[in-house]
Amino acid sequence: MTPVLGVALLYGIYTYLRARGRDRWRPRCASEDSGMSPFRASAGFTDSWGHFGFEVSDGVAIVTFDRPDRLNALTFEVYADLRDLLGELEQRDDVRVLVITGSGRGFCSGGDVDEIIGALQGMGSSRLLEFTRMTGAVVERIRRLPLPVIAAVNGVAAGAGAVIALASDIRILAESASLSFLFTRVGLSGGDMGAAYLLPRVVGLGRASELLFLGEKIEADYAMAIGLATRVVADADLTSEARSLAQELASGPAFAYAATKMMIDRELDMDLGAAIEFEAFAQALLMTSEDHAEFYRAFTGKRPPEWKGR
Amino acid sequence: MTPVLGVALLYGIYTYLRARGRDRWRPRCASEDSGMSPFRASAGFTDSWGHFGFEVSDGVAIVTFDRPDRLNALTFEVYADLRDLLGELEQRDDVRVLVITGSGRGFCSGGDVDEIIGALQGMGSSRLLEFTRMTGAVVERIRRLPLPVIAAVNGVAAGAGAVIALASDIRILAESASLSFLFTRVGLSGGDMGAAYLLPRVVGLGRASELLFLGEKIEADYAMAIGLATRVVADADLTSEARSLAQELASGPAFAYAATKMMIDRELDMDLGAAIEFEAFAQALLMTSEDHAEFYRAFTGKRPPEWKGR
Amino acid sequence: MTPVLGVALLYGIYTYLRARGRDRWRPRCASEDSGMSPFRASAGFTDSWGHFGFEVSDGVAIVTFDRPDRLNALTFEVYADLRDLLGELEQRDDVRVLVITGSGRGFCSGGDVDEIIGALQGMGSSRLLEFTRMTGAVVERIRRLPLPVIAAVNGVAAGAGAVIALASDIRILAESASLSFLFTRVGLSGGDMGAAYLLPRVVGLGRASELLFLGEKIEADYAMAIGLATRVVADADLTSEARSLAQELASGPAFAYAATKMMIDRELDMDLGAAIEFEAFAQALLMTSEDHAEFYRAFTGKRPPEWKGR
Repeated sequence: MTPVLGVALLYGIYTYLRARGRDRWRPRCASEDSGMSPFRASAGFTDSWGHFGFEVSDGVAIVTFDRPDRLNALTFEVYADLRDLLGELEQRDDVRVLVITGSGRGFCSGGDVDEIIGALQGMGSSRLLEFTRMTGAVVERIRRLPLPVIAAVNGVAAGAGAVIALASDIRILAESASLSFLFTRVGLSGGDMGAAYLLPRVVGLGRASELLFLGEKIEADYAMAIGLATRVVADADLTSEARSLAQELASGPAFAYAATKMMIDRELDMDLGAAIEFEAFAQALLMTSEDHAEFYRAFTGKRPPEWKGR
Repeated sequence: MTPVLGVALLYGIYTYLRARGRDRWRPRCASEDSGMSPFRASAGFTDSWGHFGFEVSDGVAIVTFDRPDRLNALTFEVYADLRDLLGELEQRDDVRVLVITGSGRGFCSGGDVDEIIGALQGMGSSRLLEFTRMTGAVVERIRRLPLPVIAAVNGVAAGAGAVIALASDIRILAESASLSFLFTRVGLSGGDMGAAYLLPRVVGLGRASELLFLGEKIEADYAMAIGLATRVVADADLTSEARSLAQELASGPAFAYAATKMMIDRELDMDLGAAIEFEAFAQALLMTSEDHAEFYRAFTGKRPPEWKGR
Repeated sequence: MTPVLGVALLYGIYTYLRARGRDRWRPRCASEDSGMSPFRASAGFTDSWGHFGFEVSDGVAIVTFDRPDRLNALTFEVYADLRDLLGELEQRDDVRVLVITGSGRGFCSGGDVDEIIGALQGMGSSRLLEFTRMTGAVVERIRRLPLPVIAAVNGVAAGAGAVIALASDIRILAESASLSFLFTRVGLSGGDMGAAYLLPRVVGLGRASELLFLGEKIEADYAMAIGLATRVVADADLTSEARSLAQELASGPAFAYAATKMMIDRELDMDLGAAIEFEAFAQALLMTSEDHAEFYRAFTGKRPPEWKGR
């Protein structure tokens, strides 16, 4: 065997193993039947995130903030990982729903006072902007992600933690959970990561003004009363309720959900005429989907539909 | 009598009868005092709509969905008639309020599974778009119609039926009525006919996300609690309550109501500065109206105003 | 002494006294430590407003409508003074919060029937527009004012009075207070001074439509239930509650509040991406502020922060 052949063989083995390793991170799901998306670039998915728990099963991805001794306060690293994970999720064929939750007593207490606020002191303007743009990108990616995002709020969601919950499509709160937009209490603007855009659109301009100016704690029941919580459940039931809803959505018509998410998100910024035209084109597209045909076949066949997600 | 004179005479008789027939469809109302609008084109109004009940009296037009054995499910023909009726209403001097309701147990159960969903299967893309643009036009015309539209929701309002109620200015629900945006349950997008634009603006982004993703049934009481229902009344009182409110509005200052409707509708898509400027010009116009002068005369004369609608 | 010297001396004395008089209207506040803003023009502040009560103390400015025998109905003069005061407030270093309230039983019953509505009769179009633009400017300036505005609604807030309360950031209502947008009842559009822009964004499109079309009275409890009131307090406690909240805000981080106000206001008219970018730049700026640094020093020093407002 010549040296050239030996190198080629080793490279082939390396390439094979690398591809095989990558495939481990693509669990089977309905859409695999018809093959992978041809729009995947050659970069693989990240198989391990260092700064939060991450698992995928049965179409449900779960991010678990995991610094329980700090009520899951955010660090630069958590933000950076979250931003990039959110960039990958859209490409993953095996993820149809995202759940965000926290380990321990808290959901997420916002930027860590030592690791973030301390580090910001004395940082230069352009570096500060890099930071605030990174945090904003997390929210923008949650909103632009074409699948339902569920925040399972297990405890305190404060500052950036409250905004991450706010940016999610569905918020299931444990009875003992709370949200607070406490930015002014640290001398910053109540508008952070898009909070001043989102909160008035969720609870109205009056309530949002109060909550962003004063940064008061919003208990779960009050959050429910003002439309900020989607559901409130007993603390002990939070995980099962969130997983159950996630599973229901993950086994549903994923293409229809993706379209729903995009319309809700984009039409906040459209005028009525454009929104109606957008929905006309989008719904015509959905009417040619396999899932819509499946609904009709199932209905006329008096059986439940089997959604394919396309 | 020469042939030419004979033809002229016949044409004159024909023209007279045609004009007379058209006038039958212009009941007397306050604004007749000063003559008809000079902006009416030569096309007459449609005197009969084949696919829903339609009546006009005392300034109130009532559309009654009328396929009670199908919970008033929509067909292509109902949509087409509704779109075109809504185009005519603005021109009619005799209509100052529109009421939409259903006969039998349901308000409107959305697109008929056989006559619409079945027919859509296998339809080509451009034809599908023709359909979705027709349905969107119904909602756009309800929103752009310069008079108050009342949905008297007597029972199930599902799918497109829920969106028609949503697009109305005022929703009076019978206690047993419900709404559901169940599009994802048929494999389609929760955004349909503008629902993803309107619902977040009515109930907030959080509740709208839940309702459009999950398509769950919204009972009347919950609709009231979240601002989706304007009023909830006993089933037996729905017709009288709706007619009574319609009559109150029909005998009110129609020009002021028309302006109110246009501002509410258009200012959803304006910035604050433009909205304030719009209102400044519009209100200055209203201040020159007969009805505003009538208010002042009536107030100083210690008598109730007699609104003319101009 | 030559005549020239005499004139110069007199001018010097006049200038001195004028400057001294002006300074009386700049009470000491935290921000004086670092000197006045270099962006003040040479025009002084108005030391006396003829058409409402006006006082400033400890950073809180209070406007008190003061025609109690007319439930504080507005006149042309009140509007003009209010518009111009609102133009000055942003420049005053000594004002960090604005409170608007009424003397006697009413908050503000809107445009006076005699002094405004009567005077409008027969006024020419361009003069009417001057009036409506002046009233709109009051609302626009409340919204654009970079500090929290509290409406302490002590009684009836009707017509323009309701819109002034609506434009405020925080509405504290006495139990016996009420709001009504009764414009259609005087033959005018329900949209006035931006009401058709603001109300749907506070209480949702459905409720706003009802309230603007029908002009019905909104009692304090209902206002609270729909998010139109921020707080409802016993009549006897209104003044102390409003002052206490105003004082809390006035002694807080004024720069952070100013940023919060601007974001809430401007992001109603931005798309999500722009809003997030805006917040990224703005928050990076706030991170370089003295108050944010003070928070961190206070937190690590285990003491309460002393806000400087910059």
